[in-house]
Amino acid sequence: MHLAKVYITLKPTVNDPQGLTIKGALHNLGFTSVEDVRAGKYIEIRIEDSDPTKVNEQVNEMCHKLLANPVIESYGFELERIQ
Amino acid sequence: MHLAKVYITLKPTVNDPQGLTIKGALHNLGFTSVEDVRAGKYIEIRIEDSDPTKVNEQVNEMCHKLLANPVIESYGFELERIQ
Repeated sequence: MHLAKVYITLKPTVNDPQGLTIKGALHNLGFTSVEDVRAGKYIEIRIEDSDPTKVNEQVNEMCHKLLANPVIESYGFELERIQ
Repeated sequence: MHLAKVYITLKPTVNDPQGLTIKGALHNLGFTSVEDVRAGKYIEIRIEDSDPTKVNEQVNEMCHKLLANPVIESYGFELERIQ
């Protein structure tokens, strides 16, 4: 069994209104040292497979086909063996 | 300058309809070894401050006050010194 921790972020050139809103709210709360905020998605996937190479390939395919939009988003992931 | 990478996930006992939907879609795409999916948020914050202890404290406070809902969500973060 593997746990994949997938991070999906907007590419640097893509506008991020959610991040800007969070930045504004943090400034209003007094965190004025905040320079920039980028909002993204975090997805944890538990996969019933013990072969790390195969799992790595599968997660890559999942990200490309469904989880991330490769035109505007980048993704990265970490694999962890569990149980 | 520090970069904080914040992960926010729903607590294990909280229902996650978004995760279930992603799991269903992955199964439909043929990834039948997927056992469970949990969806969360990923936020990158750039902070203009060089003191890691102070930044750590600030990010903790940001999570607690704004970014996460402590009733139903857990959070974690990593700090990285940049530039």
